[in-house]
Amino acid sequence: MPVVEPDPLRHHGDAEVGAGLLDFAVNVYPGPPPDWLDEALRSSLDDIGAYPSAVGARTAVAARHQRPDDEVLVTAGAAEAFTLLARLRAWRRPVVVHPQFTEPHAALEQAGHRVSPVVLPAPFVLVPSLVPDDADLVIVGNPTNPSGVLHPASTIRALVRPGRLVVVDEAFMDCVPGETESLAADRSPGVVVIRSLTKHWGIPGIRAGYLLGDPAVVTELARGQVPWSVSTTAAAAVVACMSDVAAVEATRRAEEINCWREHLEKGLADLGIEFLPSQASFVLARVGTGVRDRLRNHSIAVRRADTFPGLDGSWVRIAVRPPRTTDVLLSALT
Amino acid sequence: MPVVEPDPLRHHGDAEVGAGLLDFAVNVYPGPPPDWLDEALRSSLDDIGAYPSAVGARTAVAARHQRPDDEVLVTAGAAEAFTLLARLRAWRRPVVVHPQFTEPHAALEQAGHRVSPVVLPAPFVLVPSLVPDDADLVIVGNPTNPSGVLHPASTIRALVRPGRLVVVDEAFMDCVPGETESLAADRSPGVVVIRSLTKHWGIPGIRAGYLLGDPAVVTELARGQVPWSVSTTAAAAVVACMSDVAAVEATRRAEEINCWREHLEKGLADLGIEFLPSQASFVLARVGTGVRDRLRNHSIAVRRADTFPGLDGSWVRIAVRPPRTTDVLLSALT
Repeated sequence: MPVVEPDPLRHHGDAEVGAGLLDFAVNVYPGPPPDWLDEALRSSLDDIGAYPSAVGARTAVAARHQRPDDEVLVTAGAAEAFTLLARLRAWRRPVVVHPQFTEPHAALEQAGHRVSPVVLPAPFVLVPSLVPDDADLVIVGNPTNPSGVLHPASTIRALVRPGRLVVVDEAFMDCVPGETESLAADRSPGVVVIRSLTKHWGIPGIRAGYLLGDPAVVTELARGQVPWSVSTTAAAAVVACMSDVAAVEATRRAEEINCWREHLEKGLADLGIEFLPSQASFVLARVGTGVRDRLRNHSIAVRRADTFPGLDGSWVRIAVRPPRTTDVLLSALT
Repeated sequence: MPVVEPDPLRHHGDAEVGAGLLDFAVNVYPGPPPDWLDEALRSSLDDIGAYPSAVGARTAVAARHQRPDDEVLVTAGAAEAFTLLARLRAWRRPVVVHPQFTEPHAALEQAGHRVSPVVLPAPFVLVPSLVPDDADLVIVGNPTNPSGVLHPASTIRALVRPGRLVVVDEAFMDCVPGETESLAADRSPGVVVIRSLTKHWGIPGIRAGYLLGDPAVVTELARGQVPWSVSTTAAAAVVACMSDVAAVEATRRAEEINCWREHLEKGLADLGIEFLPSQASFVLARVGTGVRDRLRNHSIAVRRADTFPGLDGSWVRIAVRPPRTTDVLLSALT
């Protein structure tokens, strides 16, 4: 099993889990999809004899975020959105604010761009003045993977200026009750928000996500999409997850994750382990070098953090799990 | 309902069908997936809580075509393969042999290349000498959509030369009993074969396909893939369709399609309508200008062919259907 990809920016938590390992590495809600989502996925298989269409999914997303349809692009997961953005233009100075999910950085390099990284110092709070004035693309996560930091919406808005696209990766915003700092419903030109169904709904196998932005950018991004890239099943998942029933369950999950996270954070504090207070479904903790390997010997997988620019081998990212599962980790850490 | 996309190269049969229309426009096997495939798709939904992996699917494809694993890339349909190929290199002179499926041409333009089209004269038989010597990429369909022409493998092999990649779109090769002219098991360097599960297995909604080529090219193409682009469900479909049971059913379907096509071709001949003898699941017929619109008034959708370079409004592409369905079309044509 590969533990690090040749390109560390392309290393992700799913490479760290394996048979017999208790998974604290992958940031996906630990539990089956809700019945209504499972039902929507299964029903979608009755429609796979036709080419897929994301038209209905687009309308459902637009309604959920109170935006016109032409400000929505449904994608094959957030990963497709990053690739489309990377290829959108001949970016002169694309900036990725680290530490954050490395896929946007990797997608930019893959598209032939030279990325200007802005590496925030601990505790990894966004400082707009650190972003170079001539950046024409700025990618920031909110709440940020792996730090769990939730930047104020106003701080992100401060990055906006003419001739610049600010991309906010909100893949974990569902974890924030009330989504208080989300820019999903903010229609400022020059802002693109990326969302994912993967984590909160526990369906990484389906590849469903979307982005929100101004109509001109959305049209341009759509043109770069592989035809029919959103499968019938992914489109059905998007429709289902935009419903009112989903909104209620999303909030319930967010509150549950908050509660589970408090248990983990308290346990870490009790052990005297340094960590960053998180607003997401994972906690970045400074367990010390070598601890990750020793945890693997206890059949526990946490996510290495040294592949994130700005972090070193003393940090690991720990997925939030139900208290009884968390206790297994805490007792191994003792 | 849009009947032509703004870019005619991006017009596909699925845009021509709609509620109440009898569909002769989309080249997909008319019938539900076999039980074993349906079962595999449904079971795959139990595994969507993990990130998808195409490793097993790759091994299954390799075994089916008797090639090493590293000569296989599983893709989100053939459409993803075309996009990856278009973006693979700074092609100096990419050639698309028309009339053929227009998506490779569109993908090349989308990637910023200027395509040199080679337009074959009717009856659209491949003549290697028409391809310019300095072409570094040549894309040809076999059997060809929309002409139904099956080129001899030896003719395609004659296109191979140092410094050139020959890409054979074999999306409809399953229709040819024995796949006699397939290059899928041919390991010549400089040849890439693209296959699709969409048409023969009737699952366009799933987005499953693959390509075969030499390991260096496959590795390079894989690097351009959106991470996790092949969903768990698509990967499961690929595994299922590479089985021995699938091979038997594939042959049965090919023979059935042959039989259905004979009925269509005989009917066209009886009506004195010019058509090209086809080896695929569709027939290119010269019904005359305006007939397609008149058929729509009879609630019958055939695929316009004037969006294919080299064809005009007198041609239409007719999907092969069971005889009783075909009779509805033939009687409308009378």
